[in-house]
Amino acid sequence: MSEFRVSFSQLQAFIGRAMTSLGIPEQDANTIGTLMAEADMQGSDGHGVIRLAPYAKRILAGGLNLHPNIQVVQERTAMALIDGDNGMGHLVMKRATELAIQKARTAGIAWVGSRLSNHAGPASLYARMALQHDMIGLYFAVGNANHLPPWGGLDMLLSTNPIAAAIPTLKEAPVVLDMATTVAAYGKVKAKAQRGEMMPEGWMIDRQGQPLLDPTKSDEGFLLPIGGYKGYGLSLIVGILAGTLNGAAMGSQVIDFNKDFTTTTNTGQAIAVIDPAAFGDIDEFKQNVDRLVQELRGANRMPGVDRIWLPGEQSHQKRLDHEKNGVMLAPSLVKQLNDLATQLKISPLTANSL
Amino acid sequence: MSEFRVSFSQLQAFIGRAMTSLGIPEQDANTIGTLMAEADMQGSDGHGVIRLAPYAKRILAGGLNLHPNIQVVQERTAMALIDGDNGMGHLVMKRATELAIQKARTAGIAWVGSRLSNHAGPASLYARMALQHDMIGLYFAVGNANHLPPWGGLDMLLSTNPIAAAIPTLKEAPVVLDMATTVAAYGKVKAKAQRGEMMPEGWMIDRQGQPLLDPTKSDEGFLLPIGGYKGYGLSLIVGILAGTLNGAAMGSQVIDFNKDFTTTTNTGQAIAVIDPAAFGDIDEFKQNVDRLVQELRGANRMPGVDRIWLPGEQSHQKRLDHEKNGVMLAPSLVKQLNDLATQLKISPLTANSL
Repeated sequence: MSEFRVSFSQLQAFIGRAMTSLGIPEQDANTIGTLMAEADMQGSDGHGVIRLAPYAKRILAGGLNLHPNIQVVQERTAMALIDGDNGMGHLVMKRATELAIQKARTAGIAWVGSRLSNHAGPASLYARMALQHDMIGLYFAVGNANHLPPWGGLDMLLSTNPIAAAIPTLKEAPVVLDMATTVAAYGKVKAKAQRGEMMPEGWMIDRQGQPLLDPTKSDEGFLLPIGGYKGYGLSLIVGILAGTLNGAAMGSQVIDFNKDFTTTTNTGQAIAVIDPAAFGDIDEFKQNVDRLVQELRGANRMPGVDRIWLPGEQSHQKRLDHEKNGVMLAPSLVKQLNDLATQLKISPLTANSL
Repeated sequence: MSEFRVSFSQLQAFIGRAMTSLGIPEQDANTIGTLMAEADMQGSDGHGVIRLAPYAKRILAGGLNLHPNIQVVQERTAMALIDGDNGMGHLVMKRATELAIQKARTAGIAWVGSRLSNHAGPASLYARMALQHDMIGLYFAVGNANHLPPWGGLDMLLSTNPIAAAIPTLKEAPVVLDMATTVAAYGKVKAKAQRGEMMPEGWMIDRQGQPLLDPTKSDEGFLLPIGGYKGYGLSLIVGILAGTLNGAAMGSQVIDFNKDFTTTTNTGQAIAVIDPAAFGDIDEFKQNVDRLVQELRGANRMPGVDRIWLPGEQSHQKRLDHEKNGVMLAPSLVKQLNDLATQLKISPLTANSL
């Protein structure tokens, strides 16, 4: 099979069609299509169109509200709490981020949390929205499946609770961090298993606390948090800020969205937006970030290291490539998406002529 | 030599005497004494009275402003930027935190940054101040010496830039995270060298990127960030938020305060305060955090694990012990402090009769 590449608009339109046929109002379906396609454009391929089939499965099982009344339920000058009414997370967090940007413009910083939200794609998608307004975005979320026990424990009560941060620049690619609080994501473990490879020490431990290296035995162990107990603490704090503070699920309340397609997830997220213009001249700030980026990139390198990367730089290069050449989709994913198209009676995803 | 234990008030008074004799106005000297003694009380013994001699050295070398005009130079409803005028960091960050708490009470969240500040003790000291007001504190700082290269690099352009978070609880000890973005702190490396022990893999690497295990060779390598490139990204983001955003030092601008006692450090810090009462009922929030804490603590444990700790719990127990039995100081530290007392012609630190 030859390479299957799709443009942003092909991907966006396909997701929009699917969402519309699933019963989501057209405008909302288009918003979801745009944000999911945007995830693939920035190289977050684990959080883009690959999620369409599981989302569809949840919608068909009645686990998502197609006509949510997404509303602000608590508000002060620099904060708001949004009740997502169990709608698609993309709709909830787009609304939350737009509100945070608006509030930050006058207050200097704003924080908007969500409850009764759902999976919203990659963390950096929302942090990045602030960049278009020359603002800094910080995003925190409770993951939708628990993979981590507390440090020293055996019960998986914590998720990979991600953090994203996006910092505007002048000429350089924006600095964008998007990280789980575990050393490796489960996707990486599965990939190792598929390739028949062992995992490096440090990714997982077994129930005796010993290194777990065989990825086919991942059910017998746990992901390791970054920096050991530090990552455990970080995951907990992110979870409290994005979940508990908003009245959203945390700890044992978290629903594994890969196994349970009907129970309301009550997902919690939070977006903070800082306006650097409140601190001083915006161009001077962006220039200083540029200078820092150049300084780090220009550092002397270890033997065998071709280049020093800044957070978000590889994603930026993928975006440029995808804009030019389209997003490459794996044959198995294309098949899954077009099976879904058949099921939903919509026109299939066609390969790009680019 | 028998155990040397001092009470909070003995420690506070001694530091206050020293600071006054160094030329700091009495009220400021007392504030510094209180905050530094508080650091020892909470078990942050690397950031309490142990820093008195280096602070004194900097003051005597003319590297600190004894009569700073600490002032707000930028302000919006939910933010402020404070110019520390090269005063002691404790004075700057106490002022910043009080302002953030005041602003958060009406705005729901507030963020106050500092520039031209200095080392201010442990990160959690300021995050914890929010707890007395039933608020959440988040603290970020640029460290005062670069120990980290960018990932893959050889030039140490980043510091261990710490993060602290403090979450109020009802009956449980508050959840308090205080962590550097490196796996180990340099203090731990030095301790291993003193004991003639090797370091575990994962603490440091050499200039070829190979594990460095001999702590006496720490000059030949670098500390490792938590989660590899993730911790590098985290250290950078913390540094931009606490440093670059405030017009404070970052990257090559950072002064190594262990080697240079005269150049203005232009240290940057940031404190964010969130008022959970803006999100809903405060007691309900604190109760939910309690429940989460109990759930994590009650998890089944790995073999050989006696207890699951929550972030801040060990520090809380140390505080209780110190309140009852005083803070134990190492003989070498007591000697150093009383040598300083002789030099400054102040009465020495006397052991507690407790």
